[in-house]
Amino acid sequence: MVPHLPPEPSTAPPHPDASALERRLEFLRLAGRLKHVERRTLLAEGGRRENSAEHSWHVALYALTLAEHAPPGTDVSRAIAMLLVHDLVEVLAGDTYAYGDAAWLAGQREREVAAADRIFGMLPPPQDAELRALWDEFEAGESPTARYAVALDRLQAILQNDASGGASWREHGVSRSAVRRRGAPIETAIPDAWPTIRALLERNAALGNLRTDDGESSGA
Amino acid sequence: MVPHLPPEPSTAPPHPDASALERRLEFLRLAGRLKHVERRTLLAEGGRRENSAEHSWHVALYALTLAEHAPPGTDVSRAIAMLLVHDLVEVLAGDTYAYGDAAWLAGQREREVAAADRIFGMLPPPQDAELRALWDEFEAGESPTARYAVALDRLQAILQNDASGGASWREHGVSRSAVRRRGAPIETAIPDAWPTIRALLERNAALGNLRTDDGESSGA
Repeated sequence: MVPHLPPEPSTAPPHPDASALERRLEFLRLAGRLKHVERRTLLAEGGRRENSAEHSWHVALYALTLAEHAPPGTDVSRAIAMLLVHDLVEVLAGDTYAYGDAAWLAGQREREVAAADRIFGMLPPPQDAELRALWDEFEAGESPTARYAVALDRLQAILQNDASGGASWREHGVSRSAVRRRGAPIETAIPDAWPTIRALLERNAALGNLRTDDGESSGA
Repeated sequence: MVPHLPPEPSTAPPHPDASALERRLEFLRLAGRLKHVERRTLLAEGGRRENSAEHSWHVALYALTLAEHAPPGTDVSRAIAMLLVHDLVEVLAGDTYAYGDAAWLAGQREREVAAADRIFGMLPPPQDAELRALWDEFEAGESPTARYAVALDRLQAILQNDASGGASWREHGVSRSAVRRRGAPIETAIPDAWPTIRALLERNAALGNLRTDDGESSGA
């Protein structure tokens, strides 16, 4: 999805005399632009699309609330920190719709890495590397903590789509099997929640919110 | 500020057979309504008011980013958790403008305690008490962690008001001395940031965004 953001602020390297505090406040100001990045998902109560800032809050609250269901070895506080920064690259690179255009998806990784270089590079060392490491770990999705965070990111999106009546799925002709594949990290990282998601997918398929004509059965 | 929320969902006591996971997901769904609670502050880039969900994300990111400037004894992860839940009561009680009507402000505490009883009570024990304790600690504002969180809540609001050109201050005729009193927790908990706030107040007073006619000087 091509972002519709206000004009891009200068993110030139900070003035060499800028204090650590000044650099952090400038980073926080740029980060605040995430409130302008729209996702495809509608709010549960409808009315408008969700933005990536409020999504980031919601999914961080998921991490706090569902801690008991996290994979063994998860560092919940680190998962929360990871989720606070996981979408920050979007202030420069825009949101990329999970079920979107293949050509735009293909350039996603390159755009996001360049954005990460610029955004996390605004911070003083060693904090620049520490916060960048959170994003890298989330993107790799391999540690228990990252697997938990990635699964929550998917879980919140699916529950929110369901709560808004599947409007975004219908609008984009998304199939049940595509959402099931997208939700696979939930099945492995938060198996407690998987029966809820399976039932939700069947319900939305029955309602016609999710396509079922792409040749995959509903079996596990 | 009287909230303008969608019709209130049922928050009757959960069904006794509801699993811990079901209760947590229902809590997270109600929490999501925070995306509909508008604050008075405009976004830094203007255009619309900030909502309490995206504010909560932003201030939690402040807590992560400004950790080095926190009071001695602060538990930064706990401050972040605290900030994720600090405004949750607003999904039932609405936002209360810091510089708002005295009669509405007077009922704030009672409304918020009732809301906290209902919202945190949705969670299974002992998590209901654990998350409620975060909110109580924030409200009391006495521990180093809570003093840090409260100061960040004020800092984010003041920086955001400044970044949006002081529009909300002008609209409500707010004075420099009122913002300085409101910002006092910053001065004690995050003294590194206070010179920035003092300079910001003088600049906004000079620009006419903050009133200076209420008999207080700009002295420290």
